[in-house]
Amino acid sequence: MPILLGENRYGKAETHVVRVTRDGPCHGIKDLTVSVALSGDMAAVHLSGDNAAVLPTDSQKNTVFAFAQKYGIESAEHFAILLAQHFVASQPTIRHARIEVLETEWERIGEHGHSFVRSSRETRTALVHHDGERTHVVSGLRDLVVLNSTGSEFHGYVKDEYTTLPETHDRVLATAVSAQWRRAETDDAEIRAADFDGDYDIARAALLEAFASTYSLSLQQTLYAMGTRVLDECEGVCEVRLALPNRHHFAVDLSPFGIANPNETFYAADRPYGLIEGTVLREDAPAPGPAWS
Amino acid sequence: MPILLGENRYGKAETHVVRVTRDGPCHGIKDLTVSVALSGDMAAVHLSGDNAAVLPTDSQKNTVFAFAQKYGIESAEHFAILLAQHFVASQPTIRHARIEVLETEWERIGEHGHSFVRSSRETRTALVHHDGERTHVVSGLRDLVVLNSTGSEFHGYVKDEYTTLPETHDRVLATAVSAQWRRAETDDAEIRAADFDGDYDIARAALLEAFASTYSLSLQQTLYAMGTRVLDECEGVCEVRLALPNRHHFAVDLSPFGIANPNETFYAADRPYGLIEGTVLREDAPAPGPAWS
Amino acid sequence: MPILLGENRYGKAETHVVRVTRDGPCHGIKDLTVSVALSGDMAAVHLSGDNAAVLPTDSQKNTVFAFAQKYGIESAEHFAILLAQHFVASQPTIRHARIEVLETEWERIGEHGHSFVRSSRETRTALVHHDGERTHVVSGLRDLVVLNSTGSEFHGYVKDEYTTLPETHDRVLATAVSAQWRRAETDDAEIRAADFDGDYDIARAALLEAFASTYSLSLQQTLYAMGTRVLDECEGVCEVRLALPNRHHFAVDLSPFGIANPNETFYAADRPYGLIEGTVLREDAPAPGPAWS
Amino acid sequence: MPILLGENRYGKAETHVVRVTRDGPCHGIKDLTVSVALSGDMAAVHLSGDNAAVLPTDSQKNTVFAFAQKYGIESAEHFAILLAQHFVASQPTIRHARIEVLETEWERIGEHGHSFVRSSRETRTALVHHDGERTHVVSGLRDLVVLNSTGSEFHGYVKDEYTTLPETHDRVLATAVSAQWRRAETDDAEIRAADFDGDYDIARAALLEAFASTYSLSLQQTLYAMGTRVLDECEGVCEVRLALPNRHHFAVDLSPFGIANPNETFYAADRPYGLIEGTVLREDAPAPGPAWS
Repeated sequence: MPILLGENRYGKAETHVVRVTRDGPCHGIKDLTVSVALSGDMAAVHLSGDNAAVLPTDSQKNTVFAFAQKYGIESAEHFAILLAQHFVASQPTIRHARIEVLETEWERIGEHGHSFVRSSRETRTALVHHDGERTHVVSGLRDLVVLNSTGSEFHGYVKDEYTTLPETHDRVLATAVSAQWRRAETDDAEIRAADFDGDYDIARAALLEAFASTYSLSLQQTLYAMGTRVLDECEGVCEVRLALPNRHHFAVDLSPFGIANPNETFYAADRPYGLIEGTVLREDAPAPGPAWS
Repeated sequence: MPILLGENRYGKAETHVVRVTRDGPCHGIKDLTVSVALSGDMAAVHLSGDNAAVLPTDSQKNTVFAFAQKYGIESAEHFAILLAQHFVASQPTIRHARIEVLETEWERIGEHGHSFVRSSRETRTALVHHDGERTHVVSGLRDLVVLNSTGSEFHGYVKDEYTTLPETHDRVLATAVSAQWRRAETDDAEIRAADFDGDYDIARAALLEAFASTYSLSLQQTLYAMGTRVLDECEGVCEVRLALPNRHHFAVDLSPFGIANPNETFYAADRPYGLIEGTVLREDAPAPGPAWS
Repeated sequence: MPILLGENRYGKAETHVVRVTRDGPCHGIKDLTVSVALSGDMAAVHLSGDNAAVLPTDSQKNTVFAFAQKYGIESAEHFAILLAQHFVASQPTIRHARIEVLETEWERIGEHGHSFVRSSRETRTALVHHDGERTHVVSGLRDLVVLNSTGSEFHGYVKDEYTTLPETHDRVLATAVSAQWRRAETDDAEIRAADFDGDYDIARAALLEAFASTYSLSLQQTLYAMGTRVLDECEGVCEVRLALPNRHHFAVDLSPFGIANPNETFYAADRPYGLIEGTVLREDAPAPGPAWS
Repeated sequence: MPILLGENRYGKAETHVVRVTRDGPCHGIKDLTVSVALSGDMAAVHLSGDNAAVLPTDSQKNTVFAFAQKYGIESAEHFAILLAQHFVASQPTIRHARIEVLETEWERIGEHGHSFVRSSRETRTALVHHDGERTHVVSGLRDLVVLNSTGSEFHGYVKDEYTTLPETHDRVLATAVSAQWRRAETDDAEIRAADFDGDYDIARAALLEAFASTYSLSLQQTLYAMGTRVLDECEGVCEVRLALPNRHHFAVDLSPFGIANPNETFYAADRPYGLIEGTVLREDAPAPGPAWS
């Protein structure tokens, strides 16, 4: 039975570019790690090592640096759109580009115009797909670590023969939020007009606020509240995906030492951990196409 | 416009179980890290925090340990199948189980019957999906780090305006292989009869041999040769997916110091790196269903 | 020639304790990872496995949790002092205790009384030694990542036969600051009276301010300015040790593409990196004893 | 009170050099990550940014690559000695060099002359100090992960008020060995004549054999046996330092499920962990000087 080449892609991963703007005494800084993945007419290179259709990953890296200088970085998403469209438009053998960006945010040190500190813990993310006709954009963040010291319960669950967990009416709820949100537009002009930085600020605030203000009977309930809140507050966003590892904080049993522990002293466990993943979307969300892949 | 709950799953991630067999003077050891993800009738828990359909992730962890003792661990795949079928069969609210396993292999120290050393660098992987009717099994490995010190070229590629890379007729080719292979069977009795350990040994050897013996004009060509070789040698396997980061080794320019470098001294770079991903499959491979998700 | 047992110590490492204070609507939170290392009369356990002098590491872990509940956590340093003195005072076989603490700081989410986010990137550290008579305390931080986008030069250095680096009069200077500062007091009552939280805030601000305001001709000069500033502003501190990895940001040569790069687009390299380590101390600093070990 | 500059050093860290030997159909490969730290007349650069005494870290990196090509890599230790002596001998402002090397070992794939796989899990280490007169060499390894599935007990220890650990007469004993051993010679000609590769093979085998064959009443006892065995078998080695994290494997209590667990099913915990550190040395071992710093 014949053997076939199936789906494939290739590109330069993790080009770390830092772009400084020096328009006046106050510099600006954008710090992106960019991964490019291209696909198209790649049968020959796989079957015989004929590279005639292959734009080297080294050239892709050069393009990232050149574009950073030439066009600046309006936002992670805008920069990724520019790159994706360039590769598909300029290379006849490339049909599809996927650009993934991780952004580290820097904060100014006091009043100093050109000194910065990495103060936020989370990483901002952007994922762009472009196939020559449509552009899908997913924005997000990861490692936004949050904790509620009360206001969380867990009971009323299934008890099977392997269940030993006692029900609780007061527990610590902590997680490292990974969230991604998809814009509905895929038309070129429309998607370029989106305010991705505005979305980011609103979505981040919505995630924090929903986490903090939800009285939680399960982490799933909190997840759904967080996703709903992002949709409520970000008009152009049609779908949110969340992954919430449950960073278990177990109240330590100090009774062997004659010490009461009224939910004040916890052992913060690493592994294993619960992992809650879910999607919240508008009823009229357009099909995602390759947006999440 | 109404907001909906979309796809979701939950479970206990990274339960690290070590199972010793003590049947005689020579012990055996299996070292697995197991992640469970379940889905089913989970609307209520998201919308209102009603946990009536939720089997706690703590119970899932207990099940991993209990099954390790009760049934032993024939292979990572067999153990994952057992678990997947158990959750779906025993819980009316659970429609689908996904079990992912990372296995660390231990080697006996000399002739000592109960002393072991972790000698291999790679991690063995297994991924099982079960929905009550069909069982999909994907096996694999990651971090199998290999290097050819010659026998690799790269030229004849596209030169666009951002291309500066010189062509080469002799380079180091190195990568950390991630490979996964899918068995064709999804029928319960058939898939349980598969020899996953046999597959693993054959596939690992095939990957090494294909990497070493392919005179390479591109990493894509090597990837395709590796995938084809696994299919050639593992009869029951219908599809192979590979991800090969190109661990660039750049020959250092020592000419400023009057020293020739005939491809002997290299700088091993970390980032950025090329990333080549591809699928090789039989023409008659059945549709994968959820196997890779 | 006889073989001897030399220096040794043992203890429980990385006990992750989270202590919540619930005195009113606004909770407080302390998040510490505590490592204990004890030494004393440990010849027998090494030579023959006689554990009569050994307090189990499991008991040390229990002590960390019990003390967190019993005494609360005034500061990382105060908590470490309590533990160190306890082990030496309560165990006749223990002569010396070393307690190391890593602290993660949490920030309140908006006005929510019991919701927190990990916003700072750096980790606070404390290191305490106690031998029954004297207590040495070293405080610090790590992974405080900072960057100056200008105001840094590097020239006038030695040129040997392996030097190819061009001199520069404008470069990015970036580093991940590790700093530790030692209090002069070792008397028990005196050291307990120290304001470690106050020191921390002042030292952190001094490090940032000195980094930002030093026009730098070398990273060593910046290091010395940072250490001096901490001593200037923290009265009770007698010695500062700094480790500053030089996170190289190389201006990308875009001339092959006809693009000028006036120090705006940089490649942020991972490895190799310069590493600058240095100590700044008062002339009358008392001998450190075991403080840094 | 005046402020002084104390101890300091600087250099290029983590230069990753791979050296291939291509003398015939069978290539050889050495894979080292080299960190250089130099000290000497460095007051001016700290106090005023005057770099006249500073050999750039970039030149140090170049030297690592140039020496790899020029002299080849006989062993990690020999290469480090060459570098250390070069920096001190060639730079009047450098009084002391510290060279640290991490080595990754590669194994040939089958009979292929120029194909390699990283098969061992541990990392080989070398640490060299040279001050123009004396050369101290410490060799070692880290992350040699070993496990005994029986033959280990723990009882007879101190029970204080925080002790809850039950005594055990059969437990799993597992650790990730970090070991370093010091050669006695510091004379230049003598130390260059040492057989570091021979030492490594003997020491590694001795560590494994001692771990496997010691019936253990405490991890300290195993540590001492391992150190002693290295000294017994490596004639030129005068001191061994070991750090053994206790990778706890807790037998899971399956009695709630009516399942016996005769020490067969374990939960492998990550944190916290016991950490046992100790030194074993010959009575006539010369003073270590800076060897371990």
